[in-house]
Amino acid sequence: MMAEKLTEPQRKELLEPLLVAGWQTTEGRDAIRKTFSFANFVEAWGFMTRVALHAEKLNHHPEWFNVYRTVEVTLSTHDAGGLTELDVKLAKRMEALAADA
Amino acid sequence: MMAEKLTEPQRKELLEPLLVAGWQTTEGRDAIRKTFSFANFVEAWGFMTRVALHAEKLNHHPEWFNVYRTVEVTLSTHDAGGLTELDVKLAKRMEALAADA
Repeated sequence: MMAEKLTEPQRKELLEPLLVAGWQTTEGRDAIRKTFSFANFVEAWGFMTRVALHAEKLNHHPEWFNVYRTVEVTLSTHDAGGLTELDVKLAKRMEALAADA
Repeated sequence: MMAEKLTEPQRKELLEPLLVAGWQTTEGRDAIRKTFSFANFVEAWGFMTRVALHAEKLNHHPEWFNVYRTVEVTLSTHDAGGLTELDVKLAKRMEALAADA
C-alpha cells in the first residue's frame, strides 16, 4: 500500500485532535512535530523504545532528537512528500504511549 | 566526581584517535559529533539501545538525532561547559558498539 498525502478534509478531521494534543505543523515542510518531556532519561528512553517497536511494525519511522529527558519528534512521509495517514497513526500511538509513561 | 574540561595536552592525546575514527569538532561549541549509518532501522536502534544503557550507567547522555538508519551524535558535558573525559569515554564506547553492529 502506497501512502497518499492527506486531503484537505482529512487534514481537518485527522490533524485537529493532534494539534489540540500539542502537535504543531512545521514551517516550509508538510510535517508535524512535538516535543515530549519526561522525568528523566530512563523514562524518555522507555517511551522511545516502545515507539521504535511500533514504528518498525508500521514500517514508518520518526525523525527524532533526544537529549536526556526530552524527545523532539517530527513526522512526515518521505515517499509521499508530506503528511499521510501513517503519520497520523504514529502520532496517535505516541500520544497513547506518552500517556502511559 | 565533577568532570572538568579537557586540557590542551589531553585534547591532543584523547581526541586525536576519535578524529581519526570520523568524529569532528563542532563550530561555535566545545563538542564532538559523528554520524553513524547502519543497514536499517533495526540495526540503528540496536546500536542506540546499547549506547543508552551505557550512557545511563555513566550518567552521561548523548544528544542524538535518528532518522531510519542514521544516527547523528553530539557529545559535550553540559555541567562543565565543554568536552570532558566523559565525552571521550562515551565516544569510545560508541565506536566499540558500532563496530560490533
